[in-house]
Amino acid sequence: MNTPEIGELGQQLRVDSVRAAAAAGSGHPTSSMSAADLMAVLLARQLRYDFDRPSHPGNDRFVLSKGHASPLLYAAYKAAGAIDDAELLTFRTLGSRLEGHPTPRRLPWVETATGSLGQGLPVGVGIALSGKRLDRVGYRVWVLCGDSELAEGSVWEAAEHAAYEGLDNLTAIVDVNRLGQRGPTRHGHDLDAYARRFQAFGWHTVEVDGHDVEDIERAYGEAVSTAGQPTVILARTLKGKGVASVQDREGLHGKPLPEADEAIEELGGVRDLRVEGLQPQAARTLHAVRAGHLDLPRWEKKGDEVATRDAYGQALAALGSSRPDVVALDGEVSDSTRAEFFAKEHPERFFECYIAEQQLVGAAVGLATRGWVPFASSFAAFLTRAHDFVRMAAVSGVGINLVGSHAGVAIGEDGPSQMGVEDLAMFRTVYGSTVLYPCDANQTAALVATMAGLDGVRYLRTSRGAMPVLYGPGEEFPVGGSKVLRRSTDDRLTLVAAGVTVHESLKAAEALAADGIAVRVVDLYSVKPVDRETLREAAEQTGCLLTVEDHHPEGGIGDAVLDAFLDGRPTPRLVRLAVRDMPGSATPAEQLHAAGIDAESIVAAVKLLVENAVVR
Amino acid sequence: MNTPEIGELGQQLRVDSVRAAAAAGSGHPTSSMSAADLMAVLLARQLRYDFDRPSHPGNDRFVLSKGHASPLLYAAYKAAGAIDDAELLTFRTLGSRLEGHPTPRRLPWVETATGSLGQGLPVGVGIALSGKRLDRVGYRVWVLCGDSELAEGSVWEAAEHAAYEGLDNLTAIVDVNRLGQRGPTRHGHDLDAYARRFQAFGWHTVEVDGHDVEDIERAYGEAVSTAGQPTVILARTLKGKGVASVQDREGLHGKPLPEADEAIEELGGVRDLRVEGLQPQAARTLHAVRAGHLDLPRWEKKGDEVATRDAYGQALAALGSSRPDVVALDGEVSDSTRAEFFAKEHPERFFECYIAEQQLVGAAVGLATRGWVPFASSFAAFLTRAHDFVRMAAVSGVGINLVGSHAGVAIGEDGPSQMGVEDLAMFRTVYGSTVLYPCDANQTAALVATMAGLDGVRYLRTSRGAMPVLYGPGEEFPVGGSKVLRRSTDDRLTLVAAGVTVHESLKAAEALAADGIAVRVVDLYSVKPVDRETLREAAEQTGCLLTVEDHHPEGGIGDAVLDAFLDGRPTPRLVRLAVRDMPGSATPAEQLHAAGIDAESIVAAVKLLVENAVVR
Repeated sequence: MNTPEIGELGQQLRVDSVRAAAAAGSGHPTSSMSAADLMAVLLARQLRYDFDRPSHPGNDRFVLSKGHASPLLYAAYKAAGAIDDAELLTFRTLGSRLEGHPTPRRLPWVETATGSLGQGLPVGVGIALSGKRLDRVGYRVWVLCGDSELAEGSVWEAAEHAAYEGLDNLTAIVDVNRLGQRGPTRHGHDLDAYARRFQAFGWHTVEVDGHDVEDIERAYGEAVSTAGQPTVILARTLKGKGVASVQDREGLHGKPLPEADEAIEELGGVRDLRVEGLQPQAARTLHAVRAGHLDLPRWEKKGDEVATRDAYGQALAALGSSRPDVVALDGEVSDSTRAEFFAKEHPERFFECYIAEQQLVGAAVGLATRGWVPFASSFAAFLTRAHDFVRMAAVSGVGINLVGSHAGVAIGEDGPSQMGVEDLAMFRTVYGSTVLYPCDANQTAALVATMAGLDGVRYLRTSRGAMPVLYGPGEEFPVGGSKVLRRSTDDRLTLVAAGVTVHESLKAAEALAADGIAVRVVDLYSVKPVDRETLREAAEQTGCLLTVEDHHPEGGIGDAVLDAFLDGRPTPRLVRLAVRDMPGSATPAEQLHAAGIDAESIVAAVKLLVENAVVR
Repeated sequence: MNTPEIGELGQQLRVDSVRAAAAAGSGHPTSSMSAADLMAVLLARQLRYDFDRPSHPGNDRFVLSKGHASPLLYAAYKAAGAIDDAELLTFRTLGSRLEGHPTPRRLPWVETATGSLGQGLPVGVGIALSGKRLDRVGYRVWVLCGDSELAEGSVWEAAEHAAYEGLDNLTAIVDVNRLGQRGPTRHGHDLDAYARRFQAFGWHTVEVDGHDVEDIERAYGEAVSTAGQPTVILARTLKGKGVASVQDREGLHGKPLPEADEAIEELGGVRDLRVEGLQPQAARTLHAVRAGHLDLPRWEKKGDEVATRDAYGQALAALGSSRPDVVALDGEVSDSTRAEFFAKEHPERFFECYIAEQQLVGAAVGLATRGWVPFASSFAAFLTRAHDFVRMAAVSGVGINLVGSHAGVAIGEDGPSQMGVEDLAMFRTVYGSTVLYPCDANQTAALVATMAGLDGVRYLRTSRGAMPVLYGPGEEFPVGGSKVLRRSTDDRLTLVAAGVTVHESLKAAEALAADGIAVRVVDLYSVKPVDRETLREAAEQTGCLLTVEDHHPEGGIGDAVLDAFLDGRPTPRLVRLAVRDMPGSATPAEQLHAAGIDAESIVAAVKLLVENAVVR
């Protein structure tokens, strides 16, 4: 295509954006129109992509960070021949692949779900890291951002990460149309303001007229030829470009054009240009990953004291030796999470993200889109920082492993800011997630190996302090299972615990047995999904479940057991011990006692239930 | 104090940091030692603060963003005469006010809880906004940051916000000791790297030797005399400064000094200098806020269709007219959340935070510490971005109102990225939180007025679409209450709903009644705390609770009802309808149907329970 033809292509993308939104009666045509020329030039001149083979290893990768401009994306797919006009007009309707914001669940050409702003660049950095450090394939990553979303801190975490890693295979294109949703952005059309920021963070910057095809072409060329640093193209554009009644006007965000037919006419009418994009460069198909023998660490002696975070680090290192597709990411706490064990053995597959948890998870998502199996670790408490990224990972349907250490009040003296006591609630409510919480080193190792093979968001909760080894090295721990650690026909209730409270429950059961009160103890290491069968059996046989958890009362283990009884069957009596007060500093044992979740508290609670004849 | 005496004071702060950590057997003395001279000069020369009157309106405000350097803070308190030496040595023990990371719950001189990095500056911006735009008092805000935490995106959200607002009453002091927890930072001692970034974001920067008292004095003076922009002081320091065996060494983060006695000797021994700080400038005591008459908006006609987000915006504007202490903050979506109604009526108390949800909540926390009653609104889905800030607000014990709009799949075509379907779980598990979810305009208005007077984190969930007015304008909705909208002695189960599902439940109940099946309907507008009495009565009288919620199954209304039955009493049968699949785009009605939470789905579920004799 020559320059005028690319100009025409830009108009076609505008027209099709207007048409799609008009058909839907909703959507963001004006946000699409501002970036149409940027997209047209990219499609015609730069993007090396085989739409028939979206998994081609040599394909460039395009991320629409401003996901609300989905009409533009779908118009581009149509221009590339990937979808037809009839499908374009299904935009936003029930069952259509063309959702309001694009997701890879439905469309093979979408790398990652967007629509929560400020996430495309962090994920793009992960993809670019894969290309540069792991795949060693020369594909480029193009991320189209809005100007409004540059206010998100996650963008600057990504900017820092990309420059530090010298990701010259990454180009951010910012559609500076000066208008956010509710009005002007902070910096309007001041491209220099953005340029100064990106330059300070170590990026190469190019400022262009985002509606001048030749100017854009030149900028893309400059990005491709810039070595050693990522490039950002700051493009001055007009929202609603090309239609006078909406162009550069406020108050029109997220609305179809009022007079679509007239607008289309003003844009030169419907076209049906077809762009033959560039083919991806030849690239070896990534070898099918052949896992070697897995030598998980083994703790042979029951009763030995081992922290589950130590077991995690060792198991992850072992898994890395067995599986060449496993990578690890750290939020500058690898000495605490023990991800450092992996770093020492597999430095080439270890990614230091520093204290930037959104970027930590964003990069993990990006790596996962390229087929890697990421394990990202930080303190459980600090993974809350990445909640929105975790949520969007679930929307993407991508598989990532997140590991939160220093769970609960059991960490002791550091106090509440460092205690993960909301993490189970956060991860349980994520769509399609798996939530695991081991109490023992061998169990941890087995779960680490298992979680790597699951779908969706997998979360493992580890503990700071050492706990006795309970299980043998060969024991199996299926997801959705549990372990009944103590049972008799006389059990008067069932203690349901996980992690540190398993050990407290066992101690309590021992003490209660000495007083003639038999109780069952279940290790609910799989918090989601839960072991319905075992919980139902315990309910039928003992009548009461007493849950004990180092977590706030809401959304954790106490709520999780309910999943076994939600089909209308009789529900057992339920009693919950959990962290109900705000802790201060104290030793781990003092913390567990103050929270009422240590053995002594459990004994007291059980005796109270027995004395009041709540249990048999 | 003269310069040598301030040098001595710095040594005393080091010695006391070492002593406190040694007594505790844990803590972060080396991170304290790097910043000791910065703190000594601040205390002796700049901080205008009356430790006997921490609520003095003219007091400067100091925030220790690097909260792990708490030994330094407590050593400074001792030097100022606020605590004695005996208390200093209680550091990190059970019941001590001197926690591992400082919190205002325990200490009156702490503005905000820190310990999750990258939060001090965002909160400091909120305090500075209060001083500059609302209090109009000339106090200064000093925030001591670590260098590692500058990797957090939230710091750059704050940097952008502070410069844009021209907060020349704000000074960030960065203790660039080049070492993070697990090793060197990205930029080490390259002060210029940080300076470039802050300058690009619009800050005045000063680079200093952080162990040269005169240099520091000069820098503070420059900060105070800089008009129109905030200042950052980038101080080159050494971690563990003053003790050769630990100074500038890796692997010593968060550990007491190995030979404390020798270290103290090397630092010149124990001192007992007492610093007479500067007194705050005279400032009027902020007037006790006298609330005027509250004219809440009224919707007189039942059945009229009104969106709860509209009711929120109108009620907030009315509340602002009545209460001069109410302020509102927006994450660049005020046209959607309807916070714009407040903005139009009270522009001087409206804060646009652009698309930066961490800063949105951080600024709200800062404003709340100065006695304002902030309402911060965004989409429910995007408040997940600020989860860690919400968590820390709870640790602080500060009162903030957060309002999440566009709840649930009911938003329709925009798709899953915009749908809040995890927010109830996130907010319920926050310590001391209140979670409200209205289904009607008058209810919304009443709850907005009520929540302003509560303690802790208050969350209100609003909906995008219009819903019929159910309640009269004068009706009361106490926190912890519910409304029984339909009841009879023949009820065979109870539908428990909130928000949009209240209306679906009422329709379902009507249809079921036509088939001779009576069901009770409860509007559980107070999701936390729940109305135990009404739920227990419904359980006793109907035997089964069927919860219906526009939220994922975990952590929402279905779990919330359990709170009424956790003392070991018999639990009713529980059945849960919730959003179990990943939605795509569709109309609101199609979404509710696909999720199985519309009237038709409820009818089908109830009939299934009746047919299978699960209910009476």
